[in-house]
Order: sequence, then structure tokens, then C-alpha cells
Amino acid sequence: MLTFYFAKDSSALASHLLLEEVGADYTAHEVPITQGAHHEASYLAINPKARVPALQTPNGVITENPAILTYVAATHPEAHMLPDTPFERAEADALNAYLCATMHVAFAHNLRGARWADSAEAQEAMKKKVASNLHDCAALIETHYLKGPWAMGDRYTLCDAYLFLAPRWLMKAGVDVAQFPKLHAHHTAMLARPATLAVMAVHGL
Amino acid sequence: MLTFYFAKDSSALASHLLLEEVGADYTAHEVPITQGAHHEASYLAINPKARVPALQTPNGVITENPAILTYVAATHPEAHMLPDTPFERAEADALNAYLCATMHVAFAHNLRGARWADSAEAQEAMKKKVASNLHDCAALIETHYLKGPWAMGDRYTLCDAYLFLAPRWLMKAGVDVAQFPKLHAHHTAMLARPATLAVMAVHGL
Repeated sequence: MLTFYFAKDSSALASHLLLEEVGADYTAHEVPITQGAHHEASYLAINPKARVPALQTPNGVITENPAILTYVAATHPEAHMLPDTPFERAEADALNAYLCATMHVAFAHNLRGARWADSAEAQEAMKKKVASNLHDCAALIETHYLKGPWAMGDRYTLCDAYLFLAPRWLMKAGVDVAQFPKLHAHHTAMLARPATLAVMAVHGL
Repeated sequence: MLTFYFAKDSSALASHLLLEEVGADYTAHEVPITQGAHHEASYLAINPKARVPALQTPNGVITENPAILTYVAATHPEAHMLPDTPFERAEADALNAYLCATMHVAFAHNLRGARWADSAEAQEAMKKKVASNLHDCAALIETHYLKGPWAMGDRYTLCDAYLFLAPRWLMKAGVDVAQFPKLHAHHTAMLARPATLAVMAVHGL
């Protein structure tokens, strides 16, 4: 049995989608971060990072989307969510790492600038660069890292659940997703999956 | 045969260390980023992200430290660099993701602030927060994510090569590593490994 800790409409959506796709035996527990619940002692005991997502497993807690995605995929082999070869696996890992460390970070400078600078002026300056940075990330993915129709080609794998966030970040930053046809088609295909719709409903989307 | 693209004293050090640890059959090719070599067409054909590291394999190019580390570990099973269980593997993945997406990003705001804001004032404001952010990252790792003596416990695994960067980021930001005894001991243990010393020499360190 797994317990998944998420905040609505956060990046936890990625791991949540994969849990639902593989048919995991899990319960989803909301951490209302807008009310500061991620800083309460009860949650810090689960995830000292004060972030979501976190996944409570029988062995302990896993944090970070790339790690949770890989764990969920590895422990549900019947769902065939991991690529087959070490190279293809590395391609999926690389996309997850890019989403985590570059594109999500670029998006986070919109509302989370206080992580990296205290002054209000600096935080405003960061916001001004978010749309162009996200555009550049999307263009890179579109051109080089989205094989189509799914990220790794013909079959949905663990990184598709994460890639679902990219068009959402673009939309929130006012960047037109339609200028990236493969990414746009990926988003449309994701929205046709029952697991996606089920998880979005839980997130109030 | 593998070709590894690196810049001296960059985060590519992490993947470079693991290649050397496992005794991989590779050649190391320097990309002098201080001279802008990462933006030249010949390198963009290898890594469109204009970053290091990149690993040319017989199947194609892999980018991103977490992906390269996992690939190198997976393709050299005799070196036993991957943890044994899915949960322990996830713990290692989570540490790699944290180093990649949080701690390295926190460090990058020191010299790479132009990625996230155009104004010189904003970039200066970012620099002011680097030391405290890196201190917080190190404290989190020290308390929760470094089992000792190696990251995952008794045995060196793929994430130790990456964790080697953490004390280096601290030192560069003027944070005293000695206040984190486990991290300090980890760094000392790394410096006793022949592979570490061999790679540092290539990086001019």
C-alpha cells in the first residue's frame, strides 16, 4: 500500500498520473500548500524538504518526481512503463531530468522567485524572463526530445506523465502551445486517457 | 566506445568520476565553455542544450548527469554502482534529482543568474542568497540523505560521484563544509579514491 502526498495543480500531478496509469494500490493525501501545510511538523516528518510530491512506501518515503516515477514504473513491471534498453532508459531519464532541473525551475521563477532572491525588484525581473525561457525549453523538447506521438515513440512511458506538465507551464506563462505541434498533440493525447482525466479531477482541474 | 564531453571544473565532474570508477572504455573531450565552445555548431550537433556533460554512446548521445550516471552504472554491472532494490534505487535517484534540480540550481544563481533575469541588479540579488541556500541544501542532505560513509550506506554507488560536487559548491560560495561532518567526511573519502584524483587532474583541480 502506498500513500501519495500531493498539492492540487502542483508538479505532483506527474507522479500522480503514473500511479493512476499503472493501477497502483495507493491513497492520495492532499497537502494544502496554499495554507502552509507543507511546513507543518506532521508533513516535515514525511518530507523534510517541505515540498510535494512524496510517496510513502512500505520501505520509507520517496521524494522528487524523477525518483517516484522510476519507482512506480519499476514496481509495476506489468504496466511496461520503463523503456527496454539502457540507452532508451537514459533518454527517458534525461527528459525527466530536463523537466525537473531546467523547465520546472524556469517556471518556478514566476511564483517562487523568493527562493533565489529576497528583493521584490529581483523577483519581478525573474517573472519577465519566464515566458521566453519556457518557450526555449519547449522548442528544445519539440525539436529534439519528443519522438511522437509519445515522448519515447510509439508507447506511453514514465516520462509522458511528467511531460504533461510542460504544456501546462506554457499556458500558465501565456505561451501559445499550438506553436509546438508535437507537444500540442502530446497534450491532446494525454487528455484522452482516462487516468489523466481521473487525476485532473482530483486536482480540481 | 564512449566519448565524454566535459568542461573543466563544471558539473560534468560527476559523470566523469563514475566513468573512471567503473573503468569505462571512454575518451574525454574538453569543451572550453569559457571560450564559448558549447555554442559552436559542432557541439550543438552533439548537445543542442549547449551544456555539459554529454556522453556519445554507440546508440546516440545522452545528456544530464542523472541520466548519464544511471546509464554508466547500468552498462557496467560488474562495478555494482546501482543500489539493489527499487526503494534504494529510488533513494539514489532522489538524491541525484535533488543535487540536479535544487542544489546545483541554487549554486548556478551565483554565476549564471542571466539565465533567469536580465537586470544586473536582479543578478546581484540572486548572488546574495546563494550561500544561505547552499547551506540549507547541505543541512538537509547531512540530516536526512547521507547515510554514511557513502550516500547510500556502506558501499559507493552512482550518487556518490554526484554528491562530490556538493562540498565543492559550498566551498566556492564561502560556506564552511566542516559544519557538516558527514558531508565533510564524504568529501575526504572521495579524495582518497584514485579515480577521483585521476579525474580531478584532467579538470586541472
